[in-house]
Order: sequence, then structure tokens, then C-alpha cells
Amino acid sequence: MFSFLRSSSLRRFSVSVRCADRAVVYGQNGDPSQVLRVLTYPDLSTSPPPSSVNIQFLLSPINPADINVVEGVYPSKPTKADMLQPPSSPEPMFVGGNEGLARVTAVGAGVQNLKVDDWVILTKQQAGTWATARHVAAEDVAKVPDSEGLTEAQAATITVNPPTAYNMLADFAKLKEGDWVIQNGANSAVGQAVIQIAASRRLKTINLIRDRPELDQLKQKLYNLGATHVYTYDQLEEKAVRDEIKGKGIRLGLNCVGGKDTTAMARLLGNDAHLVSYGAMAKQPLSLPVSLFIFKNLTTHGFWQSRWYKQRTAAEREELMKTLVGLMKEKRLDTPEHEIVQIAKGESDEEASRKLRDVLTAMGEGRYGKKVLLKFES
Amino acid sequence: MFSFLRSSSLRRFSVSVRCADRAVVYGQNGDPSQVLRVLTYPDLSTSPPPSSVNIQFLLSPINPADINVVEGVYPSKPTKADMLQPPSSPEPMFVGGNEGLARVTAVGAGVQNLKVDDWVILTKQQAGTWATARHVAAEDVAKVPDSEGLTEAQAATITVNPPTAYNMLADFAKLKEGDWVIQNGANSAVGQAVIQIAASRRLKTINLIRDRPELDQLKQKLYNLGATHVYTYDQLEEKAVRDEIKGKGIRLGLNCVGGKDTTAMARLLGNDAHLVSYGAMAKQPLSLPVSLFIFKNLTTHGFWQSRWYKQRTAAEREELMKTLVGLMKEKRLDTPEHEIVQIAKGESDEEASRKLRDVLTAMGEGRYGKKVLLKFES
Repeated sequence: MFSFLRSSSLRRFSVSVRCADRAVVYGQNGDPSQVLRVLTYPDLSTSPPPSSVNIQFLLSPINPADINVVEGVYPSKPTKADMLQPPSSPEPMFVGGNEGLARVTAVGAGVQNLKVDDWVILTKQQAGTWATARHVAAEDVAKVPDSEGLTEAQAATITVNPPTAYNMLADFAKLKEGDWVIQNGANSAVGQAVIQIAASRRLKTINLIRDRPELDQLKQKLYNLGATHVYTYDQLEEKAVRDEIKGKGIRLGLNCVGGKDTTAMARLLGNDAHLVSYGAMAKQPLSLPVSLFIFKNLTTHGFWQSRWYKQRTAAEREELMKTLVGLMKEKRLDTPEHEIVQIAKGESDEEASRKLRDVLTAMGEGRYGKKVLLKFES
Repeated sequence: MFSFLRSSSLRRFSVSVRCADRAVVYGQNGDPSQVLRVLTYPDLSTSPPPSSVNIQFLLSPINPADINVVEGVYPSKPTKADMLQPPSSPEPMFVGGNEGLARVTAVGAGVQNLKVDDWVILTKQQAGTWATARHVAAEDVAKVPDSEGLTEAQAATITVNPPTAYNMLADFAKLKEGDWVIQNGANSAVGQAVIQIAASRRLKTINLIRDRPELDQLKQKLYNLGATHVYTYDQLEEKAVRDEIKGKGIRLGLNCVGGKDTTAMARLLGNDAHLVSYGAMAKQPLSLPVSLFIFKNLTTHGFWQSRWYKQRTAAEREELMKTLVGLMKEKRLDTPEHEIVQIAKGESDEEASRKLRDVLTAMGEGRYGKKVLLKFES
């Protein structure tokens, strides 16, 4: 099947190799360190068809869930992109990445509310953001509101972690100023956003983390973000600590760990509490005494920002993004520590592939303490 | 402290031993087969003070939770009754039992809506129903609506199991005719009520039970009550059975078991389902993969009829009871199989105590397949 776009791309490719684009692609699911590769392919049309835009990616997070998508074990499935042209790729391929900040480079006829140089994020799930550029339907992107003054890192990480934190604090328990929230994995990107957004609402937080070298520095970092208390899971073995926490009648717990540490956390919740899970870092089930449900009226939920986007309107999505941008500009919501992995122009596809695979292997083994952001040199 | 009531009871006791009352009492929490005893004490005043009534118990269930109350491990705590008089009991004692049907025998001044011979149930939790008669505040009882035509066993068992079944089917998932519900422990008293109430609403039920001798008879019994499918937990190991259940998109699961069989049941639920726990017969925690919460939007709750009574109005309680009485009269809600343990007048307190303790020991060991109802010969 040769569409007009494909043949025209092919024609331009034949006259201008220097305008090539690149993407991180895979032909089939599997271990990211085996199946992913960086691929150079002909650049995109400069005149997008009606109702579509061309975008150039500025910065794209490599989130832990992206690894599960490549492995094929994540419920959100990408579709293969046929923008990749011969001779580079004979077959449609998956493009990695779900989140990312892009700049509009060309606007098709009939597109409202978007113009060249606008900063946009993808609203379509699993659209493939690990690329230099993409051609996308205008309805699959949203302009970042009030983006002047935001850093690329802030805007590139605004669609997954901060809204997860914001919505978990908003959707499950009615909380008022002075109320308490408890969370585990408090040093995760979502955990850090929870601390800051809670503090901005004058909610108090109890933050659980694993014991580790340089514990005091990490505690101090979380206190600086606005944490009320920070404890290690080991500290929960002290009855005095447990009793103090129990005394607060906590009605919201946030869990990204699972296993016995989460059981311990659930026991500290007050009556009529909600325990919301958004991750399972311990790779262990959530195991809770039935008595907590029956006699303490515990309710347990899951939260998945992808579902939120599917179920809510564009207006709700924009409202949420405005709120988060506002918090960022007021310096009440900081980007988590991150490292930018840059793919230089001069690197061959093989070199770039090797670099990417090393990063993903390290992430898969939990060897990255910080968020990883991918940047293709433009 | 000698109140007027106490001294007047004492006086009457001294003149009329034949009017003695009896109750199953205990002075402190512990193993029911150790701490419970049947005690004879002076009969109640025939002229109750204003706003109170005297009632005579007709039939009082011995529910599994009652054992936990005696052991002191149940969250609902009784208070000691000082109606028990010297010389039988020098100290206030707990009276066992939470549920029961009684007949009004005398009405104090100012009591509206109750008259002699009305059938009533206790609305106060843990009021002590294992007795021949009690003196209670009028606000702690409610008349059984439209009781003509009900059997004593139906009315005596109307306040705990049928409302638990009814409310779990009503409060958590919006179900319409033809929708499916799955439950485990389907042969429990609540489970049987679930089957019947679901059938009356034209809901379809998948009922899980343990393998056992005479399995076919039990299955047939549940089918006769209106079950759509009955499976043993072992049958869930067949992929074809699991796939068939999964295909139904079930949005409500009811759990009184816990442990791995409940994990297996939870995996069969559809998206956006609610899993409601009301018991923990396996004495194992509820252990669920975090992915069910995040990606399938599972929500897990507990249900406790005692809390429902605390949180709802008297009008809601009466409405519910009317609905259940209606179902019973239409023969759509049958009393579960039961055995009446009768304490004869001629039995000494020692003989009656021994009989009671044997029953409770057997119940504690799960040796009773049927509901046990206590009746004092009057």
C-alpha cells in the first residue's frame, strides 16, 4: 500500500539525505535491551494534510512503564507506525515512548488552536515519543497552556506523574486543610509530586521510604519538598511510631510498592480510609487482612492516569494541566531529579542503539535513581 | 448501688421463684466453652418504666460472630447487664447473643408504636438475646413489619444475613436485569440469601463452593434456590471454566472466604468491578495482584451490617425490613437450614450450660453445617 504521503516522502528522501529523522523502534515485543534500536528514516513531509500537524520532539521521558510496553506486558498497546520508509525499514515498526514534549513545526489546513512553535504534549496514549519528529493528527496533541517560563523538563514530564499525584489526592477521599495522607515509595517521581501538591493544599504527609546509604540526605530532600514526616519501613516496627501515625485517623494512603510493607502501611490507616495503588515496585501482591475491610471500612482502589485521560473530557484535561503549570510556575511543584540521555547527530544508529539499550537495562534493574529523559540532538 | 428496679425485683423474687428468667451469661471474655453458663435469675418487672418495654425472646440465632464477641475479638462490644440479681449473680454479667426475635410482654408509659404481643427485633447491637426475657429501652427494638404469616425462624434471622446479602447486591455496583454476580462461600446463610435475592432481581449468579461429599445434592439445593451456575474452587483450575466466567464481564464479587481461592475469584472479574468482603472463613488475608487495581480498575470494599445500621436512619431500616419480609412471604427468600437448640424448663442451669458449650464448641470447629437457633422453653 503506497499512499501519497509515502511516495512523496520517498521522493524527498531521494533528494535530501541530510533531513533524515530518527526514532527508537522495535519490530516485536521483547526484552528492550534485545529488541530496541535507533533507526534513521526519511524526514517528514513539510506540508501536513488537513487536520494534522508535524511536531519535533524536544525531550521525551523514558518511564518505567515504557519498558513494560516494549516487553508487551503493559495493557496499553501501541500500534505500528508506517511512517518509516524504505530503505531504512521494510516493515511498519513500533516507536517507543508515551510521554514527551514537542514543538509544532507545520500545521495542516483546518487545524484550530495550534500554530508553529507551540509546545504540545501527546494526548493519544502510546503514540511513540522517542523520535526526532512525528506527523500526528491534531486531535492527538494538546498545547501546553501558559508554557512561557516552563523548562523543557517541566513540560516534558507534565502528563504522567504530576497528574497521577494530583488526581489521587483529589478523587478518592474528601480531604481538608490539616488532614493527613500516608504514602510509600515517597521518593518516586509521583511520590515527590504528592508531597509538593499535598503541601500546596496544606495537607500533611507521612512518607515511607526504604532504608539506604545517605538516608539523612534523602529525608532532608523530602522535607525540603514539604514532607511533614519521613520514616523508613523499619521505623514502623517501633510501636511508638505506629501509635503516633494511627492517632491521626488517616483517610488516604497511596501505594506504589505492594507486599508486606504495604500491609504494614494499611494497618496504620484510620476508619473509612481509601488505599490507592498506582504501582507495584516490590512485585508482590497487595495482601490485606479482611478485617480491615469489614470493620474499619477500608476501600482499596487503583489509579491509572491513562484511564483518567480516556474517561475525562478535553476541558478537564486542560484544566488539570493549567493547575499543574500554575504550581510549577509558583515553584510549588519541582521536576524530580533527572538525567538527560542525549543522542548526538554524529552517533551512528548502532552507537545510539547501544547507548539506549544500556540505559534501559540499567532502568530495568532499578539502577537509576533519577528520571531519564531522552533528547535527540536536532 | 440498689436502684428501685433492683430492690423491687429482689422482693418479687423472694415471693415467686417459679417466675424466674434465664440467660446465657459470661463474666469475662474467653473461650465460649469455658466462660459461658446458663444462669437463672429473678424475673423482670411486669411494669416497665416510661419509654421502655419488657420482651420475651421466642428464638435467638447463635451466629458465628457471636463466638468472636464472647472471645472478645469482635469490634462490637456488649456492655454488662445489671439486671441479674443476687443471689444468682453477685456481679453484672454479659448476656450473649446479638440477633433474636422477641414478643412484647409489657409496655411502659410514653411508648408509641409498640403494644403487647408485637414481634420485635433488637436494633441495638450486642444487646444480649440469649435469654428468656429482657427489659429494654423502646428505642432499642423495632417492630417486625407485616409479621403475620412469618415463621419464628424467618423473623428471628431477618436482621443480619438477609440484609447483608441485600445491601451488598445494592450498594456497590449498579446492576441491571441479566447482569452477573460471583460469590464464594455460596452455601453460607448469606450466600443462600444472595442467590435468592439476586434471582428475585433477575440477576445471574456464579456460586463457588468447596468440594465435599454429597456435592451434587448441595449443588442441586443451590440451583433450587435460583443459582445460575455452581462450581467448586477446583473447577476453576479448568481454563474453559475460567474463560467462560471471564467472558461475562462480572462487576460484583462477594467474598466471605479470603486466601488464594478469593485471589482466583478476583481474577475472573471484569473491568471496573467491585469485590466486597463480609467474612474470612479461610482466616487468610485478601491477596490481590496490584495490576487488577491499576489496569482493571478493581475496587475492594468491606461490608458490615452493624455499620449499615449505625449509619442509616430508622426509616431506611424499616424499609429494608419490609422488603425482606415481602420476599419471605412471596416465598422468594427462604430461611437457611437450621437446627433449634432448646433449653427445657426442667433442665438445670448446669445441664443447660453443658449443652450450650457443646454446641458452641462444635460451631467453633466448623462442625455445624446449619444455622443454630436457641430457644428457651417458656
